[in-house]
Amino acid sequence: MPSSQDPNWLRELFFRAAFVREMGIELTAVGEDYVETALNVSERMTQQDGFVHAGVLATLADHTGGGAGWTSCRRDQTVLSVEFKISMLRPAMGPRLTCRAEVVRAGKSIIFTEGKVWGGDGREVARLSQTLAVVPIGVGNR
Amino acid sequence: MPSSQDPNWLRELFFRAAFVREMGIELTAVGEDYVETALNVSERMTQQDGFVHAGVLATLADHTGGGAGWTSCRRDQTVLSVEFKISMLRPAMGPRLTCRAEVVRAGKSIIFTEGKVWGGDGREVARLSQTLAVVPIGVGNR
Amino acid sequence: MPSSQDPNWLRELFFRAAFVREMGIELTAVGEDYVETALNVSERMTQQDGFVHAGVLATLADHTGGGAGWTSCRRDQTVLSVEFKISMLRPAMGPRLTCRAEVVRAGKSIIFTEGKVWGGDGREVARLSQTLAVVPIGVGNR
Amino acid sequence: MPSSQDPNWLRELFFRAAFVREMGIELTAVGEDYVETALNVSERMTQQDGFVHAGVLATLADHTGGGAGWTSCRRDQTVLSVEFKISMLRPAMGPRLTCRAEVVRAGKSIIFTEGKVWGGDGREVARLSQTLAVVPIGVGNR
Repeated sequence: MPSSQDPNWLRELFFRAAFVREMGIELTAVGEDYVETALNVSERMTQQDGFVHAGVLATLADHTGGGAGWTSCRRDQTVLSVEFKISMLRPAMGPRLTCRAEVVRAGKSIIFTEGKVWGGDGREVARLSQTLAVVPIGVGNR
Repeated sequence: MPSSQDPNWLRELFFRAAFVREMGIELTAVGEDYVETALNVSERMTQQDGFVHAGVLATLADHTGGGAGWTSCRRDQTVLSVEFKISMLRPAMGPRLTCRAEVVRAGKSIIFTEGKVWGGDGREVARLSQTLAVVPIGVGNR
Repeated sequence: MPSSQDPNWLRELFFRAAFVREMGIELTAVGEDYVETALNVSERMTQQDGFVHAGVLATLADHTGGGAGWTSCRRDQTVLSVEFKISMLRPAMGPRLTCRAEVVRAGKSIIFTEGKVWGGDGREVARLSQTLAVVPIGVGNR
Repeated sequence: MPSSQDPNWLRELFFRAAFVREMGIELTAVGEDYVETALNVSERMTQQDGFVHAGVLATLADHTGGGAGWTSCRRDQTVLSVEFKISMLRPAMGPRLTCRAEVVRAGKSIIFTEGKVWGGDGREVARLSQTLAVVPIGVGNR
């Protein structure tokens, strides 16, 4: 049985989420217990002041955190977001956001992750604190 | 000076966010200290198991919470999301999500809101706890 | 087998926590899916400005939320706090704090609760959003 | 005017909180943008399974986070906890907890901090994500 950190397996899982493909999120690195992503910002992703909408930051950070959690699961398991908190450290601007999420603690049924998002100027714009539930693949109900 | 609860003023503010227009979020009710919204779910909003992506729930809840906060501001003020936590209570399905956010406490510089999102079957699927910063209009930096 | 909502059973569980007894937290009401508590504030519970320390509010709200979760469990199960967020809505003063926590959603392995804390003047001073893990009694490890 | 990072000034501020003195929290290190603390665990700090109560972890992490925020303030300013989230990564045991909190982002009116708590065996038991409000000294109301 291949290691759960097989990048191709994770890549497939990562992009089975239509909303993530639609938004244009890229998977840029996968390691043991971490995932890195990036997103080219377009005008349609902004809020009222021209900054990146918090919902875009949340989508990027949440899915990247889920990806990091997946690297800690067995092949017959997946993860679901139980909850997350995201702090908007500064107004976020493009042209390109980057994100890295890491597993903080992987228990048998619960995984904690942390994520960081950086704006186009390299400064951190958002930080994520996330709880994931580990569930058998095909079960969306906990 | 018209009341800050003027629905037309809020409507304009609400939809100045491109990401919210793009996603198709509707403003369905505005009152003193609350805002209600709705969203018709499309296939492009799903995650890997076919449920609504947590990022969609977060966008809907965060922007609705911001709208509720706006109802407590003066006309020369706006709000920015400082942070929010969202709990995914159950897998979320369409065809239509509804959301209501209320002001929990409006201070001079900080507003706390709470939001609820219901799925197509009327059951609550997500709950939001949000902190907003009150800022002068035109200032995106805190 | 008696209902898990048996107040005596809950009372015993509630006060098996030394820190809660030590602090003087009182269990004032127990119902299906909710618990109410109270706390007489003493000078030793304050922070640097003479208000109740956020750690006291957190202890009161967290344990009351756990109690609410217990009302949803079977007799051979207990709950552990996975995480909580607490918002300090206003400075909290005594002489007496009251708290009520409710189950928002009880899943098989995860319970979400919400709690409110009111100060001596009856105004809400803190709000809790909490995730609990349901575990077999005697198992402190998840 | 002495630097705000003056350890004696911070030490005095830190221990003006009766609840923190009462609990026995020690200030072990102060630097630019961080604070470290420790706590000898006693039996009165436990929850129902003999582990350290989440309220103790929250008090330790919240106050240490506040201390880190203070290191970023001017002498005529102080900080108040707006909200915090704490994740309980594993059951926490003594005999001695250690904690380190850092400033993630210091804005003019809002400071974000992050804290970690380690148990007696050196493993991380809790992680904090905190928002502080910067206020003039003597003002407890925001």
